Amino acid sequence: MNETVGFIGLGVMGRPMAKHILAKGHKLVGCNRSRGPVDDIVKAGGTAAETPADVARRATIIITMVPDTPDVELVLSGPNGVLTALQRGSVVIDMSSISPVVTRKLAAQVAAHGGTMLDAPVSGGEVGAINATLSIMIGGDAEALKRVRPILECMGNPERIVHIGSEPGSGQVCKVCNQMAIGGALAGVSEAFAIAQKAGVDLSRVREALLGGFASSRVLEVHGERMIKKNYVPGFRTRLYQKDLRLANEVAAAHGVAAPATAVVTQLVNALVAAGGADLDYSALGTVLFKLAGIA
Amino acid sequence: MNETVGFIGLGVMGRPMAKHILAKGHKLVGCNRSRGPVDDIVKAGGTAAETPADVARRATIIITMVPDTPDVELVLSGPNGVLTALQRGSVVIDMSSISPVVTRKLAAQVAAHGGTMLDAPVSGGEVGAINATLSIMIGGDAEALKRVRPILECMGNPERIVHIGSEPGSGQVCKVCNQMAIGGALAGVSEAFAIAQKAGVDLSRVREALLGGFASSRVLEVHGERMIKKNYVPGFRTRLYQKDLRLANEVAAAHGVAAPATAVVTQLVNALVAAGGADLDYSALGTVLFKLAGIA
Repeated sequence: MNETVGFIGLGVMGRPMAKHILAKGHKLVGCNRSRGPVDDIVKAGGTAAETPADVARRATIIITMVPDTPDVELVLSGPNGVLTALQRGSVVIDMSSISPVVTRKLAAQVAAHGGTMLDAPVSGGEVGAINATLSIMIGGDAEALKRVRPILECMGNPERIVHIGSEPGSGQVCKVCNQMAIGGALAGVSEAFAIAQKAGVDLSRVREALLGGFASSRVLEVHGERMIKKNYVPGFRTRLYQKDLRLANEVAAAHGVAAPATAVVTQLVNALVAAGGADLDYSALGTVLFKLAGIA
Repeated sequence: MNETVGFIGLGVMGRPMAKHILAKGHKLVGCNRSRGPVDDIVKAGGTAAETPADVARRATIIITMVPDTPDVELVLSGPNGVLTALQRGSVVIDMSSISPVVTRKLAAQVAAHGGTMLDAPVSGGEVGAINATLSIMIGGDAEALKRVRPILECMGNPERIVHIGSEPGSGQVCKVCNQMAIGGALAGVSEAFAIAQKAGVDLSRVREALLGGFASSRVLEVHGERMIKKNYVPGFRTRLYQKDLRLANEVAAAHGVAAPATAVVTQLVNALVAAGGADLDYSALGTVLFKLAGIA
């Protein structure tokens, strides 16, 4: 592949992801609000861009990896944004986790400028970004995905790069589903562990028994162990999970879906953040219930 | 092993379980409220007992597998109950899913009569009973468990027969934890699938993507597929899950634990039963949310 990749947003996730693309021999131009991470990319063999528009002038595959919906809107449609300078035929890949509804609007804007937008949110957190083992959920045109797949494969497991649907926003819907499924499982395990502790039953035995049966889940396996060891070093920070749950509730409302378990998970996360847990791993959700139950 | 096994409660679960014990060459005496299943056991090489007391006179390992807490109380402590004729040194194994609190009381009564009680609820449903692949969660004395383990291994996978704790009721607490962990995961997957459907995203793709990552669970794998195929043939009946959730809420109250996700799951199950779903597989919980969202 001879195309230059642009990478906008070189934070905790974006920086290692961009470096993996460089490491596989691709040309890459990096852009970030603060200068430090850009210098780092230049050291790793990339080049620096001052603005998203500057990226769009020099790259035909443009990745955005920024915190939230308004950030993507600003980077794409704002002043000095990607759309002010997009080359016809370019592919914009938004790997942030943002609103599927806004994603559809942005995809239409990119199309109106002669480009194609894919939404490609990830799962796997900092560890997945650093180890290039991210799961990637993609919405948008299959041909565009085929073209950029070698770039995505620099960052994630090939078999976990899943085309969810051709409709823009499908990847973001899937990401929301992912966070909702995790949330329900996490609340269930937390409540189960609260009861086991109060009943004086060894959590490790409960975890072992449950992993052998129908209650088995990655949440029970990994977060269950975190709860037993009281290890809440992130991992995935509660403040980011809180954002994802806000999206989930927005999407539920937009589509007329009642999501009562997600509502409970959201309230527990709100309580955790209020108690000072924003920068703990989100598996600390259980501690809210443990404290309520008087467990040290 | 030369001991005779008594088996009280030859229903959907108990009958195949008792037959597995017979098939492994053990002596077994069966007892059931209605006569049909007892005749079946006799045909399979067992003998028949008229009452639980009759079982206790003839067997030194006595298994109970009945629907609910009052049934176990009746069979053990009622008129013509096991305790009226228990031989000293006998082991009573309650494999029903019942209240851990009542279990502690019954274990003390059995001990006062010179016996030992183990609580050993199972997970795996009718299929697990028929295929002898049950998971078994055991509370009570380790020596007694060692003695009866060959009998338990007739019904469940050896590596899934887990001693949860020496305290009576530990197995029942673990079973409650199991149902709570499943419930949270099930509600999360149901809400995620409701959103995916309303957003026009292919459920199979969502399931596939989520199974590759942190949202992966047996519930997503098996019940997710049931939801996609709209196959709610049990499996495990909603009316039984409703009973288990009643226990979970009782245990939460008894131990001063707030279990808001379990509360949501309970309400959804109540709604499913009210809508006529008591004999559907409990994965039909999702249909309550699908209907609310106007999904056919």
